[in-house]
Amino acid sequence: MRLREIAKLIDAECIGDPDYPIEGLASVDYAGPDQICYAESAKLAGQVEQAGAGATVVGPDFPELAGRNLLRVEKPKLAFLRIMESFAEVPACDGVHPQAYVAETAQLGEQVSIGPNATVLGDSRIGNRSRIEGGAYIGKGVTIGEDCRIEANATLLDGVSLGDRCIIHAGAVIGGDGFGFEWLGDHHHKVPQLGSVAIEDDVEIGCNACVDRATLGETRVGAGSKLDNLVQVAHNDTLGRHVIMAGQSGLAGSVTLGNGVVIAGQAAVSDHVTLGDGVQVGGQAGVTQDSDPAEKLWGTPARPIRRVFKEQAATARLPELIRTVKAQEKELAKLRRRLDELSGQAENK
Amino acid sequence: MRLREIAKLIDAECIGDPDYPIEGLASVDYAGPDQICYAESAKLAGQVEQAGAGATVVGPDFPELAGRNLLRVEKPKLAFLRIMESFAEVPACDGVHPQAYVAETAQLGEQVSIGPNATVLGDSRIGNRSRIEGGAYIGKGVTIGEDCRIEANATLLDGVSLGDRCIIHAGAVIGGDGFGFEWLGDHHHKVPQLGSVAIEDDVEIGCNACVDRATLGETRVGAGSKLDNLVQVAHNDTLGRHVIMAGQSGLAGSVTLGNGVVIAGQAAVSDHVTLGDGVQVGGQAGVTQDSDPAEKLWGTPARPIRRVFKEQAATARLPELIRTVKAQEKELAKLRRRLDELSGQAENK
Amino acid sequence: MRLREIAKLIDAECIGDPDYPIEGLASVDYAGPDQICYAESAKLAGQVEQAGAGATVVGPDFPELAGRNLLRVEKPKLAFLRIMESFAEVPACDGVHPQAYVAETAQLGEQVSIGPNATVLGDSRIGNRSRIEGGAYIGKGVTIGEDCRIEANATLLDGVSLGDRCIIHAGAVIGGDGFGFEWLGDHHHKVPQLGSVAIEDDVEIGCNACVDRATLGETRVGAGSKLDNLVQVAHNDTLGRHVIMAGQSGLAGSVTLGNGVVIAGQAAVSDHVTLGDGVQVGGQAGVTQDSDPAEKLWGTPARPIRRVFKEQAATARLPELIRTVKAQEKELAKLRRRLDELSGQAENK
Repeated sequence: MRLREIAKLIDAECIGDPDYPIEGLASVDYAGPDQICYAESAKLAGQVEQAGAGATVVGPDFPELAGRNLLRVEKPKLAFLRIMESFAEVPACDGVHPQAYVAETAQLGEQVSIGPNATVLGDSRIGNRSRIEGGAYIGKGVTIGEDCRIEANATLLDGVSLGDRCIIHAGAVIGGDGFGFEWLGDHHHKVPQLGSVAIEDDVEIGCNACVDRATLGETRVGAGSKLDNLVQVAHNDTLGRHVIMAGQSGLAGSVTLGNGVVIAGQAAVSDHVTLGDGVQVGGQAGVTQDSDPAEKLWGTPARPIRRVFKEQAATARLPELIRTVKAQEKELAKLRRRLDELSGQAENK
Repeated sequence: MRLREIAKLIDAECIGDPDYPIEGLASVDYAGPDQICYAESAKLAGQVEQAGAGATVVGPDFPELAGRNLLRVEKPKLAFLRIMESFAEVPACDGVHPQAYVAETAQLGEQVSIGPNATVLGDSRIGNRSRIEGGAYIGKGVTIGEDCRIEANATLLDGVSLGDRCIIHAGAVIGGDGFGFEWLGDHHHKVPQLGSVAIEDDVEIGCNACVDRATLGETRVGAGSKLDNLVQVAHNDTLGRHVIMAGQSGLAGSVTLGNGVVIAGQAAVSDHVTLGDGVQVGGQAGVTQDSDPAEKLWGTPARPIRRVFKEQAATARLPELIRTVKAQEKELAKLRRRLDELSGQAENK
Repeated sequence: MRLREIAKLIDAECIGDPDYPIEGLASVDYAGPDQICYAESAKLAGQVEQAGAGATVVGPDFPELAGRNLLRVEKPKLAFLRIMESFAEVPACDGVHPQAYVAETAQLGEQVSIGPNATVLGDSRIGNRSRIEGGAYIGKGVTIGEDCRIEANATLLDGVSLGDRCIIHAGAVIGGDGFGFEWLGDHHHKVPQLGSVAIEDDVEIGCNACVDRATLGETRVGAGSKLDNLVQVAHNDTLGRHVIMAGQSGLAGSVTLGNGVVIAGQAAVSDHVTLGDGVQVGGQAGVTQDSDPAEKLWGTPARPIRRVFKEQAATARLPELIRTVKAQEKELAKLRRRLDELSGQAENK
């Protein structure tokens, strides 16, 4: 790509050589002469000057730099995102691979791709332009919307439904049995998990993540939610829209997350807990109680983050505090003795 | 199903219309006119009256409600469990799919099902009525008992053995190498993992969970134990009977868990630790020491839960305590000064 | 194997019957008459005498035991490791299974094995003697070195590269999209993940572990590093050589780990954090800040371990401390009253 083409793509003022060839993208630190990068702020001017990027996307207040190609835009980060998208390969439709298995009663939309060693069982429906990559497994009666990507070796079990533009990453499992047992005096008796999973539009579920089916009814992941790798969503959980769950975080059963909730890495939420819209849960926190909207929680058990900070600061001072209290013990004893003496003297007089 | 059929199934007194048609199950909150639900206690009478369930399974003390179909039994929850089981689909035997690979030396029992793109290597034995779903991998010399379900894309590596009625959920891996290395001065040298894994009867292992093979000997999961999604069991661990490990919990190597131990979500146990029968480990706890039977542990490092509660309560009061001690410092200084003055006066006299 | 053969293998002095037959290996506790074990120290002499091992590898200071076959060497543990390696089965080359899919443009070295239902897409290169087990998925343009093992149902996505002698365990996913989104006012917008993953020589990655591709540039795992099951490595992380990450530990994005860093089970490192060479992070710790080399960290947020121990000890004493401070309050009040009285008396005089 020539620089002028990129400038046109992002509606930028081109400062430097419009015919300069760009072959790829990189961050400021790593960009070479055939790559384009971006600088979020004018403070990076020195770094851009020294770095070897072929071109840099910059904002309105960024200075011109002698011998450096710049593309000036209003919002460099968003412009760069658009360039990244133009460089992202959109795979052509590969059709159904001869070594895939697709049941006769499965319904495939137009331009669906199904990779080698993938399995699509009966009565499943796959929307237009969706891709089922090699080794992926689509159970019976699964519904997949349009423009979805089911990555290699991912598993969608019977009856699961997906909206449009969802990405289920490699190895993820949607629709496994919820973890439900009833202790019958001498054994844990399996409670049949008869419900399903509904994944709304624009949801992304990370590699080797798990979303279990409901005992009855459904487990639901709201539109636009993004779940990272190795995340656990249990039976009958309900996630609102635009929820974020970072790597290795997990929900116990029957949890309700409002819109825009953010669960940081390795954090967890206990069963039947409800978190209001916009609640943010810090890394490795363990939430055991309901929370009002917009609350920021941390720690196990999770508390409002300000309280946690106070307690942490106080705990850090605890060894010192213990020393102080010990010294006070001695001081008290000393004062008592002096007071005893003084009282004695007073009485003697 | 007619209500009278369900009443017969659970041996219930039918109050209302015995010909009422029921198509499915739901919880009280969500049940519609074609669904049956249950009410654990008479306190839910108001809820049942307002909700739209076609019928409700209730206990002996539950009041009759005008216009509501009730099925009265001794234990509503257990009766409902039986109804759930009757609604759970038992898949018919599908036989060996033409697109599965089964080695010639594999021995299949009667009515075994093997799904598309599944792999069964040599010298494996699969018991009667067991199902290997699509994409699952059964290594060499694996033994699977009767009535087992190996779900889609699950992996049983060479030599692993399973009892009867086990469920290995989608994506789970049984028999991966234990994590064993010896530092030889300039590199971590792999210690061959020559042992195996023995899974006893009625064990359930969750989606994308991992149970590693032993270095020597075997890793063992006792009968009736239930492991949730993304659980980690390491080399040479020994789990007793009826152990519960909730989602994302993990054991380091050579851990021994007694019968009925419960490990809550995201909790962990350090290597070589032994927990007695019935020990309960709270969510996100990190157990670093052996424990007597029936102990309840929480926190990292895990301590008896009562002690943890006390410490947590004390920590919550810590900021206040620091203020108190500071005030005492001042008070002490003041008392000392007053005492000095008083002593001075006394001497002056 | 005869004992004399094992003695020769490890260059040991054979005490006992050189023709004694050995069929397998075990630990001291479990070894039977046809098995060999080892005793790390002379303190185990009593145990060896009572146990039923056919032979025991021992060190220079180990006493002779009547009727017990011993193999005496300088370093018993390492000698035993060598015996274990000799017992570890090295699978013969199986070639390409007829039920595997290998794209025409894939380049296979000599003696490559590709299992049933495995997928190898176009332009991938697989080095000599490497094995791709059943159900594994190798994307487009993947490079795999020599003597690698890609276990069953593992997934290597497009463009990932592996050095020599790497082991990617069952179900692991290398090259999934990094978790990158930009909030555009009304939705989390996916940031294309255009980078790749480079795994250097002698790396082992555990079952169902995940290593994400970089946004730009690459995620790198240094030579000789060993990652356990269910580990998460995020986009743009850089791991040095000989790093250890134990089960269920995880790194957020753009983390840098120096050589020889050890991350214990279920621990995590926040994004953009850099840990110097040899840093050790304790189990379930949450590292939020950079650390100098060789530091030992624990807790959430992680602090130097000595400080954590002090704080833990102090916290354990906290309930007692609160009682002490309360008692001091009373004592202070009492002293104040006595002082008031004394002052009053003094003034009255």
